[in-house]
Amino acid sequence: MDRRKFVANSTVGGAAALMAGSAFAQSPEIRWRCASSYPKSLDTVFNAPQIVADYVAKVTGGKFQISLHAAGELVPAFGVLDAVSNANVECGHTASFFYWGKDPSLVFDYTVPFGMNTRQYMAWYQYGEGRSLIQGSMRDHGIVSFACGNFGAQMGGWFRKEIKSMADLKGMKMRIGGFSGAVFSKVGGVPQSIPAGEIYPSLERGVIDSAEWVGPYDDEKLGLSKVAKYYYYPGWQEGSGQLSFYINQQKFEALPPEYKALLEMACQAATLLTLNKYDHVNPAAIRRLVGSGAQLKAFPKEVLAGLYKASKEVLEEYSAKNEKFKRLYDSYRQYQASITPWFTLGEMSYDRLIEDSLRTK
Amino acid sequence: MDRRKFVANSTVGGAAALMAGSAFAQSPEIRWRCASSYPKSLDTVFNAPQIVADYVAKVTGGKFQISLHAAGELVPAFGVLDAVSNANVECGHTASFFYWGKDPSLVFDYTVPFGMNTRQYMAWYQYGEGRSLIQGSMRDHGIVSFACGNFGAQMGGWFRKEIKSMADLKGMKMRIGGFSGAVFSKVGGVPQSIPAGEIYPSLERGVIDSAEWVGPYDDEKLGLSKVAKYYYYPGWQEGSGQLSFYINQQKFEALPPEYKALLEMACQAATLLTLNKYDHVNPAAIRRLVGSGAQLKAFPKEVLAGLYKASKEVLEEYSAKNEKFKRLYDSYRQYQASITPWFTLGEMSYDRLIEDSLRTK
Repeated sequence: MDRRKFVANSTVGGAAALMAGSAFAQSPEIRWRCASSYPKSLDTVFNAPQIVADYVAKVTGGKFQISLHAAGELVPAFGVLDAVSNANVECGHTASFFYWGKDPSLVFDYTVPFGMNTRQYMAWYQYGEGRSLIQGSMRDHGIVSFACGNFGAQMGGWFRKEIKSMADLKGMKMRIGGFSGAVFSKVGGVPQSIPAGEIYPSLERGVIDSAEWVGPYDDEKLGLSKVAKYYYYPGWQEGSGQLSFYINQQKFEALPPEYKALLEMACQAATLLTLNKYDHVNPAAIRRLVGSGAQLKAFPKEVLAGLYKASKEVLEEYSAKNEKFKRLYDSYRQYQASITPWFTLGEMSYDRLIEDSLRTK
Repeated sequence: MDRRKFVANSTVGGAAALMAGSAFAQSPEIRWRCASSYPKSLDTVFNAPQIVADYVAKVTGGKFQISLHAAGELVPAFGVLDAVSNANVECGHTASFFYWGKDPSLVFDYTVPFGMNTRQYMAWYQYGEGRSLIQGSMRDHGIVSFACGNFGAQMGGWFRKEIKSMADLKGMKMRIGGFSGAVFSKVGGVPQSIPAGEIYPSLERGVIDSAEWVGPYDDEKLGLSKVAKYYYYPGWQEGSGQLSFYINQQKFEALPPEYKALLEMACQAATLLTLNKYDHVNPAAIRRLVGSGAQLKAFPKEVLAGLYKASKEVLEEYSAKNEKFKRLYDSYRQYQASITPWFTLGEMSYDRLIEDSLRTK
């Protein structure tokens, strides 16, 4: 069939003709590899870049294919930034706070302790200064980054012993991610950076005393309730947790504009769907965890106040010594101060109403 | 240039070659018209289908164009369902609760009084039964529908007099949307269905005593604070508000699969971005409103309890007499009962922590 003739026929009136063949048969063919920082077993976070890959393939009629590779398959869990930066892979899916030791400003691409909740963060990222500042930071590493998923508010972690005061944190060995580890260190704890697969055995053997990972659904998959029975909230360290899709900058720049727009949009769709999926799977997971013996505990107010004070100190220390960090921190904290009162009025007053109404039904 | 040869050259290694020409030059050309239920002045909600149109055009290199038309331009504000159903336009952007008189089950494509908050609703829509049940309802009208934006939690509305008890609602004429009007009627009020542009003059002339529209940003645009000074919360009638992109089913079925996937994905991107945009613009709007004299008031507990009781009664009345409504209501309320405890634990405990922390800083 002559495609040029086919196109000429398929104006608004000739919709039936559109059924024949692939609409994008003449588009350029691309094969990319995407390295994830997560194992396949954590299916929700692992699936975020798969949503991108599926949409990109569907929309291009299979012309643009992205193959997804679990942590360790092509590069180590925490090696995604370097691999994309060096073009060892064209793209990757990760959490930017894994790399804060290399570039502290990257924590703002994920979250900071006592930071904005998920919707507040997304508003800052998409319509405040967040996205442009973060993409500026990532350009220094030769990477184009897009938000690609969010965990929502996380839990405060699993503890083998109850936490009654700040003294209980002194000397405690805890698996705690990224920048929050610096805060935990400030209050006398001993933070450990351990990938997903090693948390359970470390807790079981007593190498660590406690661990935070994500939330009910993912924590259940790691089996953490079997080796530490107290499950603490709120998750002061991660009230939101943005995932990122990294693309090697040269590879991105070489794409036709249609493919660039497609990737950006697919990451936005994956951001929405991944958050929706976590919100869908966590309610049943927390019921199963509690049903099998996990004990929910709220951190004492004194402990939360101590962690808040330490968080502010650490944020201000980095802000004083790192210009990129300061630029992001100033934007982030001003936005948080501005958006929180509206959420308290509009969203929280509604959530409280529903909580009360359902209880008294 | 021979495009077939061009494609053959543009494999993974030949990225530079991809820069030449449009990647989708051979795709079918489509021109669609989209009728919005909203005026251009409400820029955030009006822009939701524009996000879809922009992405669809960018990704297809201009081959698939959707032109956007404000309420009244092609069809009246509340005529979008009929216009899409009858293929007077190929697609539209609207809120399904406008049509609950025609099909009560459509309220679940928007929200119900005392319903789920935005993230809870989205989880039900995308991963619970929501989407498939709603799309089933819409098929009866010859329409394929996709979520396309969300207002977030709304405010309870503008009142010329203070509300102190249920007695104050008796005989009150209020502009209140869709199904919530039936609840308002149940408690003795007189609900009025009035499009955006007529709310201000109706309040000014005393034709109505009160009006709820959306939230700070949109309400400010309508000028409501100038004609009714008490701004009530929480927005019991709309704790979330999903917007919908309607597509005539035959027009949709005639699209190539690539364009179908593209539309679905673009609507997901627009859902995320429209919610983010509202969350971005509302904080400054509420400050401006309060700064210019609007008085924030919480509904008395007695009034909320009365409205909750009336809401349940109305929902159950429709459920008893309408099978489609019942199927959706059963799924919706079970999901709400299941997801709310997790949100109270994970999200609300975090939001309370931040509210307290920022206050004591």
